[in-house]
Amino acid sequence: MTDIKWSDAEKKIARRAFDAALQKELAALLQQLKSRAAKAEGPEDIWAIHDYLAKQRGVIDGKYDYRYSQLIVVFGHLLRERRLEEKDIEGLSEEKLQQIRHITSL
Amino acid sequence: MTDIKWSDAEKKIARRAFDAALQKELAALLQQLKSRAAKAEGPEDIWAIHDYLAKQRGVIDGKYDYRYSQLIVVFGHLLRERRLEEKDIEGLSEEKLQQIRHITSL
Repeated sequence: MTDIKWSDAEKKIARRAFDAALQKELAALLQQLKSRAAKAEGPEDIWAIHDYLAKQRGVIDGKYDYRYSQLIVVFGHLLRERRLEEKDIEGLSEEKLQQIRHITSL
Repeated sequence: MTDIKWSDAEKKIARRAFDAALQKELAALLQQLKSRAAKAEGPEDIWAIHDYLAKQRGVIDGKYDYRYSQLIVVFGHLLRERRLEEKDIEGLSEEKLQQIRHITSL
């Protein structure tokens, strides 16, 4: 997949889809943080929130890898998690879409 | 200071003062967390809260060391930070109180 060429138009679509998914994921995390902090009652809740944020940072850093060599896999995972819909990546070449769907189906 | 003997009565006083200071510190941290989470608006706020909790965990772990060889220094620091008052450790021997005050004054 590292040989796949991305046209300028595709790069624009990819960037927009990638950023939108990341923003949505971070917005959801922010709401989780607010909700958990509001409900927190004791020290164990403080450290559980810390550990949750540490883990989410790792998950998000690992998942959102904007290298063209990785984007097919990234988009495949995001579709599977329903953080993206097919319409968000409409305009990518049919070859790329098929590879992305393949990843999604694994 | 490692040679200092702690009577049973002193151990009770020490334990109560230590636990009370720790509980107060954790309660303050919990309020900080709630306040910062409620005001958080974006990703950078999420990670700032994570980093703040990570740092506070280290600070608190380092500060609250309940070994009899360390308690004089621990209480000295807690007095200096006004997390304890002299009355909280009333009943310790005059020798210990003097050493604690000495640490506080450094």
